[in-house]
Amino acid sequence: MTADYLTLTEKTLSELLPSEDTRERSLIESMKYSLEAGGKRVRPRLVFEFSALCGGDPESAACFACAVEMIHTYSLIHDDLPCMDDDDMRRGKPSNHRVFGEDIALLAGDALLTLAFETLSSDRAAKAAGDRACRLASKTLAAYAGATGMVGGQVIDLESEGKSAPLEVLREMDYKKTACLIKAACELGCLSAGAGEKELRAASLYGESIGIAFQIQDDILDCTATDEELGKPVGSDSENGKSTYVSLLGIEKCRELVDELTEKAIKALDVFENDASSLREFALELAQRRK
Amino acid sequence: MTADYLTLTEKTLSELLPSEDTRERSLIESMKYSLEAGGKRVRPRLVFEFSALCGGDPESAACFACAVEMIHTYSLIHDDLPCMDDDDMRRGKPSNHRVFGEDIALLAGDALLTLAFETLSSDRAAKAAGDRACRLASKTLAAYAGATGMVGGQVIDLESEGKSAPLEVLREMDYKKTACLIKAACELGCLSAGAGEKELRAASLYGESIGIAFQIQDDILDCTATDEELGKPVGSDSENGKSTYVSLLGIEKCRELVDELTEKAIKALDVFENDASSLREFALELAQRRK
Repeated sequence: MTADYLTLTEKTLSELLPSEDTRERSLIESMKYSLEAGGKRVRPRLVFEFSALCGGDPESAACFACAVEMIHTYSLIHDDLPCMDDDDMRRGKPSNHRVFGEDIALLAGDALLTLAFETLSSDRAAKAAGDRACRLASKTLAAYAGATGMVGGQVIDLESEGKSAPLEVLREMDYKKTACLIKAACELGCLSAGAGEKELRAASLYGESIGIAFQIQDDILDCTATDEELGKPVGSDSENGKSTYVSLLGIEKCRELVDELTEKAIKALDVFENDASSLREFALELAQRRK
Repeated sequence: MTADYLTLTEKTLSELLPSEDTRERSLIESMKYSLEAGGKRVRPRLVFEFSALCGGDPESAACFACAVEMIHTYSLIHDDLPCMDDDDMRRGKPSNHRVFGEDIALLAGDALLTLAFETLSSDRAAKAAGDRACRLASKTLAAYAGATGMVGGQVIDLESEGKSAPLEVLREMDYKKTACLIKAACELGCLSAGAGEKELRAASLYGESIGIAFQIQDDILDCTATDEELGKPVGSDSENGKSTYVSLLGIEKCRELVDELTEKAIKALDVFENDASSLREFALELAQRRK
């Protein structure tokens, strides 16, 4: 599965990008630059895995998987802009605006966000999954990615800069910023295979649980990672006054929470009749990761 | 018609905006600020007009009309940002980022773009127009608004800064930057009413023609408007070295072109069986406007 979905993700993404042979070549190059620097493709993987679990075929899931990845990619480009996090590097390469300029980076983000919905409503997607599934996928992805989902999470993050936020604010921020798009991926996998309400609810719970566990694990790793030269913790958000799970709850309680959430995610998989071992392992992998 | 569609547009837009009663209140306020500073609602009007012309009812057109307006609004917010045109004012009010900050303005644009597609794929839209029409509307709007449409036009505009672009570049830029979204509005009106290919092609031609005529008329007005105090032409793009239709073709040729395009738009309306006088008048109004 792992190798297959990766190959299919890269192939479909490159088929969906507009040709570079246009006057707006720099825009397409900029979209491609960030889309190809794609890391582990966690979200597409979840779409393919849940689709397979619900009896769907990879072609039905391919457009949905790429649409989620486009949303993820646009959010990273906009997040790195000087008026947001002002990051010069992303995944070991110069960030998009450092290579293409702020104006093109802004527009490449806009174009990727738009392309995600063009992909979900394409004839290719409709042929594979049907008009209704395409509409529901679009509705789901937009809701989780928009003002009351991922974008909303960014706003809560901005507004808690330099403040010590209480746990409930941190929870809502991480739920929206990180877990919402993971949830969307899991639900879109089910939708691509025409799954029912019961399966959708289970996928949603799995996505939400691993999404929050992922964020807490990030805080733990930020806090336990040491600068090799200085032997001190590095990169901790709590250094700049921001709350993290670790600063609010302590590291032991955080480890317990990750385990509880991982267990909850794995338990949610019980409703599926097909073999869910791959998703079970994925939840465990995330909880046990060391970087 | 005019008063009705305006009322329905404002009412539907406010129903579609998320509640301000959330932690990300500033985001929703920022979206609302720009959405409510809406001007003449040219694009929603076109959706309602074409829907009515194809026998559709206003409720079927309402979500589609608002989605096009959300795309238009997001593009203005992002266009005004310091890394783009750096405009402090928009329609007589401070631009979005001057009120809410660059970070929130960026995210409000992203959220409006996302909300447009959430609206097109909502249960409300599907109940009124059906799953297939919703998918086709989403596909159409995304294609005209994205990398090879409106966003592509912005890129051509950025890259022709300070250069004297030839007529073919100016044409492609204006087609993409302005005419594409006008075309989308006309086509979405037809789609909301379940119209056929013949009607869609006619609406598309009408939209493209008035869209380009609008842009040429803008260039004429920019060049003939005089500063009341100094008695000199003001605001002309050709002053900063950029090509305009007037600088390339001269004012007489431009006036001829506007008339030809307006005639072409009106001729396209011949295929419709219902009374198209309102759209005929609208094309003439745009061509004859003096500001």
